[in-house]
Order: sequence, then C-alpha cells, then structure tokens
Amino acid sequence: MKLPQGFRAAGVRAGIKPSGNPDLGLVVGNDPLVWALTTTQNLVRAPCVTRNRARATTDQPVRALVVNAGNANCANGDEGIWDNEDFAATAARALGIGRPHEVLTASTGVIGHKLPMDRVRTGVPLAVAELGDDVDAFAHAILTTDLVPKVTEAKLASGARVVGVAKGSGMIHPNMATMFGFLFTDAIVSQRELRAAWPGIVRRTFNQVTVDGDTSTNDMAIVLASGRRAAHLEELTNALAWVAAELARAIARDGEGATTLITVDVRGGRDEHDALAAARAVAGSSLVKSAVHGHDPNWGRILSAIGQAGVVADLSAIEIALQGTPVYRGQPLAFDASALSQSMRTPDVRIEIDLAAGPHDARAWGCDLTADYVKINALYTT
Amino acid sequence: MKLPQGFRAAGVRAGIKPSGNPDLGLVVGNDPLVWALTTTQNLVRAPCVTRNRARATTDQPVRALVVNAGNANCANGDEGIWDNEDFAATAARALGIGRPHEVLTASTGVIGHKLPMDRVRTGVPLAVAELGDDVDAFAHAILTTDLVPKVTEAKLASGARVVGVAKGSGMIHPNMATMFGFLFTDAIVSQRELRAAWPGIVRRTFNQVTVDGDTSTNDMAIVLASGRRAAHLEELTNALAWVAAELARAIARDGEGATTLITVDVRGGRDEHDALAAARAVAGSSLVKSAVHGHDPNWGRILSAIGQAGVVADLSAIEIALQGTPVYRGQPLAFDASALSQSMRTPDVRIEIDLAAGPHDARAWGCDLTADYVKINALYTT
Repeated sequence: MKLPQGFRAAGVRAGIKPSGNPDLGLVVGNDPLVWALTTTQNLVRAPCVTRNRARATTDQPVRALVVNAGNANCANGDEGIWDNEDFAATAARALGIGRPHEVLTASTGVIGHKLPMDRVRTGVPLAVAELGDDVDAFAHAILTTDLVPKVTEAKLASGARVVGVAKGSGMIHPNMATMFGFLFTDAIVSQRELRAAWPGIVRRTFNQVTVDGDTSTNDMAIVLASGRRAAHLEELTNALAWVAAELARAIARDGEGATTLITVDVRGGRDEHDALAAARAVAGSSLVKSAVHGHDPNWGRILSAIGQAGVVADLSAIEIALQGTPVYRGQPLAFDASALSQSMRTPDVRIEIDLAAGPHDARAWGCDLTADYVKINALYTT
Repeated sequence: MKLPQGFRAAGVRAGIKPSGNPDLGLVVGNDPLVWALTTTQNLVRAPCVTRNRARATTDQPVRALVVNAGNANCANGDEGIWDNEDFAATAARALGIGRPHEVLTASTGVIGHKLPMDRVRTGVPLAVAELGDDVDAFAHAILTTDLVPKVTEAKLASGARVVGVAKGSGMIHPNMATMFGFLFTDAIVSQRELRAAWPGIVRRTFNQVTVDGDTSTNDMAIVLASGRRAAHLEELTNALAWVAAELARAIARDGEGATTLITVDVRGGRDEHDALAAARAVAGSSLVKSAVHGHDPNWGRILSAIGQAGVVADLSAIEIALQGTPVYRGQPLAFDASALSQSMRTPDVRIEIDLAAGPHDARAWGCDLTADYVKINALYTT
C-alpha cells in the first residue's frame, strides 16, 4: 500500500531475528513530522518507551521512526538505555539528520537479551537504501508472532489519507507480546490538535484489544503527520479512529491460536470508563473465551465478567445478546440453545450488552482460547 | 476426618448433579455457633451470597450451614431469591431450628438454571438423617470439578482443633468456578474477635489463589466456632491462617488441567497491599503460567507481570529467583538455563521476588496452563 504524501519507508533483514525474516523497519518524513504517542502503562518499560515518552514532553517534531523486531531491548540495565540511544543515533547518521532525538525508536521481541548493535549498524543503512513510497516492507519487518501483516487506510474528502500499520500481541510465543500501532497521515494538523485527539482514539481502539491479559513492556501507538493536505479536524479524527479500530480488530483476530474474533459491544454505561471496562472485561475473560471456543451460549459467564468489571449496572435490567439473540434481561430468557450454539460456529462472534445505567457505549475485541495456544507453548523450552 | 467438638456433618446424593455424585452437604452446631464470613467482590452475586452477607451485618449466631453443588442458583431473578430462602427454611425445618435465618446457605454449579426444589426438599432430610462427627462426606458433597476433596486440620496447645474444607475453582468446566472455604473450630472465641481476624486471614490465603482470573458470583469463605475448648486468640488466628493457606494451596494444585503448583513469594513490598498484588499478578499471568508449563525460566515475563501489577518497586534493585536460582537483580544475571529448566520439571515451582521497596511480604498460589485445560473445554458444548 502507498504511504501518504511526505513519507518514505523500508523494511529489511538485519539478522536480529534468528528466523532470518525481515526485522528492521524505517519510516522517514521528507520534512519534520507532527506526532503523538501513547505507551504501555506497565511500570517496567523498555528504553524505547521511556525515551519516546521523554521526547513527547516537548513540542519538537520528529523526522523518523526506526523499529526492530526480534529483540525488545528491555530489562537490559544501563546498557540497554545506551544501546537504544545508539539505535536512534545510527538511524539519524544514516539519514543525515543532525539531531538523534528527532528519531523515535521502537523495539519488540525477547526481553533481557542485549540488542545486537553490530546487526543494527549494518541493517540501518540497508533500510535507508531501500526507502520508497510503499509501506508493505515496513509492515512485514515489524512482525513477531503475527501470522499476517496488518495495514489499513482511510481517505478524507480533501484527498488526505491515513495509513495504519500494526503488529499484534501473540498469545503464546514466549517473550513476545508487544503491540505496536503506527498511523501515518498527510493531513495538515497541529501538534496540539493531534496530541489532544490521540489518547481518546487509542483508549477506544488499541487499548480495547485483549489477547491474554498481559500488558507488554514495549507497547506503543504513534501517529505521524506530514502536513501536506488540508483536513477537517473532526474528519481526520474519525479517520484515525476508524483505521485504529480496524487495526485493533485485526490484532485480535490474529491472536495466536485464535479461530474466532470476539467483538463485545456495550451500551448503557454510566460513563465512558464503565462502558470501556465492561467491554474489556467480557472480551478478556478466560471463561468467556473458552465458552466461545466451545460454541457454548453461556451467558452466565458473560454476566459474571460484567459483575467482575466493577462497573455500575442495573442488575435487574442488564441485557445480554449473543449473535443477535437476547439471552438475558434481568433474568434468564428462553432461547433455542442448540440453534444459538450452531450460529456461534463462525469466525465472528458478537456479544451485545446493555448495562442499563446511562448513555455511554464502547467496544472491545478479543479472541477465543484454543488448544493450539497451549499446545505450541507446551512444546516450547528455552 | 473427625470434626471439632460441637459439630455434626453429612453429605448425600440429592440428585441435583446430573452425574449422580453427592451434591448436598450439611454442617450443624449442637449449640449456636459464632461465625464470620467473606464473599466474592463480584457485583453479580448469587442469593446465597447476598443473604449470608445480610446475616453477617447482625451479631446473631447461626446453627447450620447447608450447601448444594451442581446448581449455583445465580441470576435466576426473584425466583432464585425465594428458592434460596426456601433452601434455608427446608433445612431449618428438618433440623427443628425455629428460625430459618440461623441457617446459612451456599450454592455452586451452573448459573441461570432454576434450583430443583423438589430434590432439595427430599435431599435435606436425608442429610439430617446421616449427620455424624466426620467431615469427609460433607467435603465430597460440595465438590464440582475438583478432582480431590480438600480437608485439613490444625491443633492448638489446648486441644482445640481447626478443621477446614474447601472446594476449588476448576478452570475449564463450563459454568462452574466457585471457590468455597469452610473452617470449623471448637475453640472459644467471641464473634467480635473472630470477625476482626477473618478478613485478614482470607486476604492472605483464599484471595491469593488464582486459577483463571475469573471471580465467581458465589465465592465464600466461612468460619464457624462452637466454643467448646479454651484457645489463645493469637494461636487460634495462626491456626486458622495455616489451615486456610493449606486449603488455598490445595485449590491451586487442583486447578483443572494443572500439572504444576506455582508458589510466588514476594518480599520487600512497600505495604501489604503491594506485596499481595505483586504475588497475585505473577501467579495469575497467562504468560508466566505458560512459561512454567514449558519449563521455561523466562524471568522477563515475571518482571513484566510485576510491572503490570501497579505496585511500587525499585526497578534497579528488583530481585527474581526461580527454583532458588537468582535470575535477575536490577539487570539480567548469568545462569545455566538448561539446568534451571530441568529443575522446573517438578509439580512444585517456586518464584521468589524482592520488590526492594519496603518490609512487607506475601504469597500467592497458581497453577500452570495446560493443553488439557483447553482440550476438555474445546470438546464441550451445551
């Protein structure tokens, strides 16, 4: 897929992944880029997360984003911090950017192993030599346990575009669980406006994906804007949200071992927080995920997950529907269990919930829990 | 195992479980019993939980505890509330107790199915006829997906005894995930003292067991005291805590599909809450549970789980040891990975963590995540 105007990208094999697959990606702005960032809330953070967060406290634009897969460069002590600085400086030098802090970094992969700086130093110039206006090689190079690359676009009325790339959080593969979402747009938008909009977009999209309940030390969502084409702010915000939601859905569908995407739609929340929390709790419940895998219309587990979410709900009026069939409304409803179970034999299961406590809605995405998930892991040893 | 003085118990087949296994248990005090209760924090609560909580707001003693397995009588609307009252009244009548509210109830099993009151009404008198001074039939009758009954005792210097019975929270079996802990003692203790001690005991024991992260609508821990034998309060508290911890450990070990008990010991917590939360987060992490199952000395996942727990820790001084081998101290430590992996091929894996932030410690118990867990579930449909 073509990048929006003002961007170039590349993805190459630097030799960081033992598999020999592409593992180093680079995105560069022809001119300074307006940007916004959200990161993992895990207190154990990789140096790339800490450094980008520090950069985000300033108003300075950036010029490039360099990403490696196969090594998270996390929990490596002071050496990891310096290696991360070196990663940015190497990219800045190869790109002819005078200031390394105009380069953002992102690493994903195994924790606690030193980043192989020799391979970074030879890989980065290869990526610079490959820079072009297509995003696909970049999208491949950032993957770890993902089965498929995740690329989506949206177009604004003005012709401005939003292109998004993500990598997901595999459930099984040891040490690797980072989620990245990178969005690129050629829309004209101020840093202030973009940074005001981004956390809300991420809150309703990437943060609503739940695969195995664990939060990575390296998770990041970054938006970069090259400012080439006019854009109505609300339209741009909606386009960013749409692309981020599509990527979130793709990440959940590609959860390792997953056969079924679970979409949970909550309405009737007292506030946005409650609606988001209830949706996430249901999508993330091991019991619900297991029930979906078994095609079991087990609304009791859904109700219990709502109760566990700690949100306000009118227990006498809560409604639950599975695949469009109402199964609970304050008390059990009669339904044809075998027909409903049959309708759950599909790669898309939808759960709808009304908390009956207010006007707020939210969505979350998850996946079923399968034998493959555990099987692959059971075979693994270091 | 013999009950403490002043108690009688029974367990019978009432026909509530489709399997025909024992499913109705009864414990009776010869005289009024001092008692204390803690319950699930899930906002969706079964009528037995709501009713016992209401009883616990008074100082009135109780005379009996009646338990059924196979049906949680939860989410059954008003009918479930009345059936639960009827359950207590049926037991009171059969025991010749004038006041039904001197009978506590506990139900576990499938959610959203009407409690079969005809079977309750024929089963309760059977249990009354079987009452004796042994606890084992009761311990069998309260099980759902547990593989083994869980009974433990402790003796005080005075000869007073504490006998504990628990049922665990099977990971797989659909609809059934309630945890019960019932402790019986003939120690002399006041209601006030017992109720002051009980929440702290439960907080450090039953609440530190994590099997699949889901909290049941029916979880309860109840202690009943018959007041027959002298007891030093601190000694009694320690004995209750010891029995509760043993039961917690037994519940984790019997998690469905589990092959390995995971014990997480945390020290160096800023406060008790932090120590408890860190231990629980590590024991409950799907990634850690998977690593243990694969005999993978993957300390990165442990560190990440600590970071996710939201507790205060000195990241430059955190220590992690696996099976007694230090693997991380502010940065990765060198260790023999294959020897350590070999030492993890045991039914007992121990993880020790120093948060380096204070003097508080805590323990949590979990189990590995196995193919059997998902396999059994994948085969299930309603």
